Amino acid sequence: MRLLVIGGTAAGMSAAARARRLDPSLEIVVLEKGPVVSFGACGLPYYIEGRIRNAEQMVVHTPEYFRKQRNISVRTNAGVVSIAHSRRQVSVEGGEHERYDRLVIATGARPRLTGIAGEALPHVFNLHRMSDGQRLRQFIEEKRPKTALIVGAGYIGFEAADAFRHRGMRVAIASLGFDALNRRDPELTKLISAHCERFGVEMRWNTTVQSVEDERADVVLIAAGIQPNVEIAREAGIETGRTGAIRVDDRLQTNLACVYAAGDCAETFHLVTGRHEWVPLGTTANKMGRVAGANAAGRRERFHGIVGTSVLRIMGLDIGLTGLSCEQARAAGFNPVEARIQAKSKPGYFGGRPITVQLVADRGTRRLLGGWVAGEHDVAGRANVIAMALQARTKVEEFEGSDLAYAPPFAPVWDPVLIAAQQLVKLLD
Amino acid sequence: MRLLVIGGTAAGMSAAARARRLDPSLEIVVLEKGPVVSFGACGLPYYIEGRIRNAEQMVVHTPEYFRKQRNISVRTNAGVVSIAHSRRQVSVEGGEHERYDRLVIATGARPRLTGIAGEALPHVFNLHRMSDGQRLRQFIEEKRPKTALIVGAGYIGFEAADAFRHRGMRVAIASLGFDALNRRDPELTKLISAHCERFGVEMRWNTTVQSVEDERADVVLIAAGIQPNVEIAREAGIETGRTGAIRVDDRLQTNLACVYAAGDCAETFHLVTGRHEWVPLGTTANKMGRVAGANAAGRRERFHGIVGTSVLRIMGLDIGLTGLSCEQARAAGFNPVEARIQAKSKPGYFGGRPITVQLVADRGTRRLLGGWVAGEHDVAGRANVIAMALQARTKVEEFEGSDLAYAPPFAPVWDPVLIAAQQLVKLLD
Repeated sequence: MRLLVIGGTAAGMSAAARARRLDPSLEIVVLEKGPVVSFGACGLPYYIEGRIRNAEQMVVHTPEYFRKQRNISVRTNAGVVSIAHSRRQVSVEGGEHERYDRLVIATGARPRLTGIAGEALPHVFNLHRMSDGQRLRQFIEEKRPKTALIVGAGYIGFEAADAFRHRGMRVAIASLGFDALNRRDPELTKLISAHCERFGVEMRWNTTVQSVEDERADVVLIAAGIQPNVEIAREAGIETGRTGAIRVDDRLQTNLACVYAAGDCAETFHLVTGRHEWVPLGTTANKMGRVAGANAAGRRERFHGIVGTSVLRIMGLDIGLTGLSCEQARAAGFNPVEARIQAKSKPGYFGGRPITVQLVADRGTRRLLGGWVAGEHDVAGRANVIAMALQARTKVEEFEGSDLAYAPPFAPVWDPVLIAAQQLVKLLD
Repeated sequence: MRLLVIGGTAAGMSAAARARRLDPSLEIVVLEKGPVVSFGACGLPYYIEGRIRNAEQMVVHTPEYFRKQRNISVRTNAGVVSIAHSRRQVSVEGGEHERYDRLVIATGARPRLTGIAGEALPHVFNLHRMSDGQRLRQFIEEKRPKTALIVGAGYIGFEAADAFRHRGMRVAIASLGFDALNRRDPELTKLISAHCERFGVEMRWNTTVQSVEDERADVVLIAAGIQPNVEIAREAGIETGRTGAIRVDDRLQTNLACVYAAGDCAETFHLVTGRHEWVPLGTTANKMGRVAGANAAGRRERFHGIVGTSVLRIMGLDIGLTGLSCEQARAAGFNPVEARIQAKSKPGYFGGRPITVQLVADRGTRRLLGGWVAGEHDVAGRANVIAMALQARTKVEEFEGSDLAYAPPFAPVWDPVLIAAQQLVKLLD
């Protein structure tokens, strides 16, 4: 039995590793179009900043490791150009074929084409692959740019802004709309925008950048979103969903038998909307890969779904998000209500600082639908608490009495997330 | 309509404040036997340490505040000696009576009598009331003790050990059994014990202290547990449960109509054991008080129950606990399995440190039953995530795929709590 995995990043390598653990006799081959596998792209902003010294530190394991320690064959620089499912084989650049009994598609995503003029100029960058990071950092260290323009107000845009500031640059961020982090939450956007401006980052909202040729920035980063790599899958008759990413069932199987998809190229079930959505995140890719690998190895495992939890740090402000914003909830058919409170993260004598919590619930069912937490510390754990409540379809009334840990070094007696829930209950009554 | 509240600490003042908010016309009287109300006992170790400068900082609100801002009458130094429910009145020390239509009993707990000889000596202390803290700190500042003996290995014992060390003392902790934090978890006890010894605290396990007269310690703290104050309730015909604390229903009503109980004097429903338990914690007292106050004010509110979450810091080690240990789970009728892993709290380049996670699940139902997290940082949030999973009766398989936040400044791609869950799934298979 031969398992072929297309793509050697988070989802692909997780799938391969899990399949190996479950079935020592399986033949496993990973085909990766780039030069490295097991690359953690989330480290890129910290590599640009310099906190990560060498690009190799972003690579969890080498192909040699997988070969020797896990008995997984890894072929790098081996881009797959087509899948012939009837013959159970794929074609690799250069004309070779690789046979499979089971296939995991983990082709990831790529930066969306923006059509901005000047994209090919030497001072214009993306930040997606390891080589993007290496090129950008080399440029920064050699040319010592003083000003930077970032196109896009998503995760990469803000994290890169922080990294550029560490490198001594003056930074501007230009964004098509007024929407930070694709959350469709004007209050969150205001909060982030004000924070960035406080640190001297110029925020250009509702701005269309048509060309970077006339911009006076010494370095330009285009971080205006990504799109799933689904072309070879589509050509092979693998269905994509409403979102454009590969459609999968709860075992992460595609419409073709024995063909699975995981990670940024695939949709995933969203436990709040109850629909399949495309939420490309590294941690989800790892989890999907694990389940796809298990099923490809003959086990029956379900991927329970996601709630869309993420967290980032922007110049000392930590922001954790999960579930839906009010506007996203409305678009998903709910009748949402929102509460937003500010409280202390913990007692003042333990260095407590203001923390903002937003919660969204459905008016009819009183079910929690989403929330975010923003502050200087102790944010991720609180966002995760909301995420767990979303997974369990918790009602606001149950949530407001949640038995969260209390002691003065950690939290106030009433944790800020519970104060937000109390506020939300009042609005619902 | 007159609401009487016996006890002006966490549960009592929460009940009074909530009742006021819901019914502006209610007459509300709080009877507190001590000199202060709204006192946060959890601050005591930090007052001893000196981090909290003045004892008044441990008082959230004064009687004047409640009188003027909330229209709540507060009588301090007004200990209730008996309840005559047929006449709907209580007797106060000195002979006065106070009438009620609704009664909330929030009499709290007190240090358990240990029978240790020498308890009344001037260098021997408890740490429960504000005056205990004031006496102890005054003693420390005046006598400059060099050595301390703490009897009891519970929360107060360890937190006080930390405070004593800050005051430059050599500390020994003596405990009857081999059981830190009443958790009945030998591995946790080992971990805490080793940590304390690393910081020079002498751990005397399985030691009966019969007398402190011959101990060479300059200061002795007896922190060997507390017991609920239920005497006046019992004499009035209010039932106590299996645990010895006041029995309440899910609206926190006692067996007597219109009489509620909340906080450390009462039992509470434990969502994991499915039984009423006595888990006296400040945060639970506040939450129970809120619900008791609402029901006393004529609303119908449920107290959903607890899972027994707590957290503490012992000399730089943070420990968050929730639910049951293996031994506690066995005693509650489960067939428990336990996994314990060590992982990094976050990537090394963001200062990640080892973190230990333990999880317990039931073999038959695969339901999570408890867990703890111990490490130098980012512990409370992770314990809360487990707590939320317990509240929702989550199975290990669902938990291991939980959508927790990931970014390098905060966590590894696989959060340590999820790695522990994976380990547990393996043990269950």
